[in-house]
Amino acid sequence: MFFQPKKKLYLLNCATIAGKPEKEGPLGEYFDECFEDMKLGQESWEQAESEMIRLCFDLLGKKEPFLTEKNGVLIGGDLMNQCTASSFGLKNTNIPYLGLYGACSTFVQGALTAGLCLESGAASWAVFAASSHFSTAERQFRTPLEYGAQRSPTAQCTVTGCCTAQLSCERKGDVQLIDGLAGIIRDGGITDVSNMGAAMAPAAADTLIRYFATTKTSPSDYDLIATGDLGYEGHLLSKEILRGEGYDMGKNYTDCGLLIYDRERQDVHCGGSGCGCSALVFGAYLFGLLKEKQIRNLLLVGTGALMSPLTLMQGLSIPAIAHLVHFCTEEEE
Amino acid sequence: MFFQPKKKLYLLNCATIAGKPEKEGPLGEYFDECFEDMKLGQESWEQAESEMIRLCFDLLGKKEPFLTEKNGVLIGGDLMNQCTASSFGLKNTNIPYLGLYGACSTFVQGALTAGLCLESGAASWAVFAASSHFSTAERQFRTPLEYGAQRSPTAQCTVTGCCTAQLSCERKGDVQLIDGLAGIIRDGGITDVSNMGAAMAPAAADTLIRYFATTKTSPSDYDLIATGDLGYEGHLLSKEILRGEGYDMGKNYTDCGLLIYDRERQDVHCGGSGCGCSALVFGAYLFGLLKEKQIRNLLLVGTGALMSPLTLMQGLSIPAIAHLVHFCTEEEE
Repeated sequence: MFFQPKKKLYLLNCATIAGKPEKEGPLGEYFDECFEDMKLGQESWEQAESEMIRLCFDLLGKKEPFLTEKNGVLIGGDLMNQCTASSFGLKNTNIPYLGLYGACSTFVQGALTAGLCLESGAASWAVFAASSHFSTAERQFRTPLEYGAQRSPTAQCTVTGCCTAQLSCERKGDVQLIDGLAGIIRDGGITDVSNMGAAMAPAAADTLIRYFATTKTSPSDYDLIATGDLGYEGHLLSKEILRGEGYDMGKNYTDCGLLIYDRERQDVHCGGSGCGCSALVFGAYLFGLLKEKQIRNLLLVGTGALMSPLTLMQGLSIPAIAHLVHFCTEEEE
Repeated sequence: MFFQPKKKLYLLNCATIAGKPEKEGPLGEYFDECFEDMKLGQESWEQAESEMIRLCFDLLGKKEPFLTEKNGVLIGGDLMNQCTASSFGLKNTNIPYLGLYGACSTFVQGALTAGLCLESGAASWAVFAASSHFSTAERQFRTPLEYGAQRSPTAQCTVTGCCTAQLSCERKGDVQLIDGLAGIIRDGGITDVSNMGAAMAPAAADTLIRYFATTKTSPSDYDLIATGDLGYEGHLLSKEILRGEGYDMGKNYTDCGLLIYDRERQDVHCGGSGCGCSALVFGAYLFGLLKEKQIRNLLLVGTGALMSPLTLMQGLSIPAIAHLVHFCTEEEE
């Protein structure tokens, strides 16, 4: 499913809220707001994640006047069972809502879905949101935090953060959503929950290969190509797969999971992961690079591992998916 | 978000697979396939649900030649944590995939999303799927089946079943997707997990009221209006809310949760629920009524309760959403 809108779709703005380790990372200065208390004054971490989404939605509303604009839609998703972080965080907005489940690819799937809503005329603006929270994800997917379980070398660290972004076909902005490609589920047979990078690398490579073939472009046509949360291990693996298919990704190929933390200084093993990883890095940093024309175009590839704790306990392998969107600062004719 | 496609979008066909209680219900004869073994030869109920989706996808492929048609997309969702029933069931299809989370509104959200994909030109056909399985849902949301816990009078019974449906803008069919309306999350403050009907009734009524206002129509303009899984209690409540807003729903207003079981003969309390409820009833029965022109038009209102076992344990109320699609057998000018 290659999405190539005829309308001009402008990404007007992003709002970001991040936790303490993200604030202390290399992109710390770019986040709109950060918090030290992982509970954000709430009774539970889960409610804190919802509160973070609510605050992030409000923050975007202060930046952009979408609350007074008609015919909008809200698109959201997260990692929590039944995606309750998003539905509880956004339940008082009074805006039509589409819930997604794309695991850590949700932010990019949201951008793509926002594009579909606008191009089809169903909405004239869309806000898409994605979030993750270290403490809710760890205890849901792995072990209670109190165990202090040791992470394996290939493990990544779930990012605490949220990004909300507005796409519009009525108001103009500097950054455009040019096109996008929906992912195909790929299962490389990985069963190690501490190696999500390896599980997702085949899906990321597959989507990039299909995108280059569809658009008749090559990696060097883009100023930056960033996957969502492959981390150190997955990033290397994806480069290897792509090289095997004849694509040298060059120096402009990176991963949001590598950008968000300082792996030397911070105890994050293979880097960042979670829906919030690509969402935060894009919303706070990459979107800024585009806006300031430090990069002219960007391929953002959201990567998601579609397992659950139960499928892992039942011994099943980890299927993965990668959705792609292409953002640009100049109008392409 | 009111979706009104300019293209003609044809719902070409549906395939349905159901469990034993559904087979024994009033619509038993309409399902394409039924099974007695709740594990479908698999090692777990969860894998059985994935297998059911896989079989249902294959079944639709036998009815319609979409597997040989280019430029398609697959849209799916279910109730299991991280929506693994769908992603595992559909992981070997080699078709671009969009995962949704709309709880029991997923089938209708899928129809709406399929429409967005086609109208925007991103795809020329879409298959959307939704499923639920009594045994996976019960042990995930309530108690281990072995407990034999007694259900409260307002409880409903999770439907075991799946429907896959194909929407196309290239091949013609008898049934068209005319328009649709995305739901807004409504929270009436219900905290009783055994009364999902009451939790979802405000959302269903809200969507219907907004739809009638948007389209300047009234309930009597439709041969049938069916909500997804409000059940007996929720159905009554929704009628009451609608009456209070000046809408007499008349005799053509029903609920898929009331149609799928015989409440007198089967031990299902308030009726059916789950993603599979509206999916099965629509795919096996209502789609047939439309095709055979026994009804000319239909409003299908998928209703979803957006809680999780964790939010319930944390004492939070149950937000709900209702998405609507309008199907028609005759071309409306």
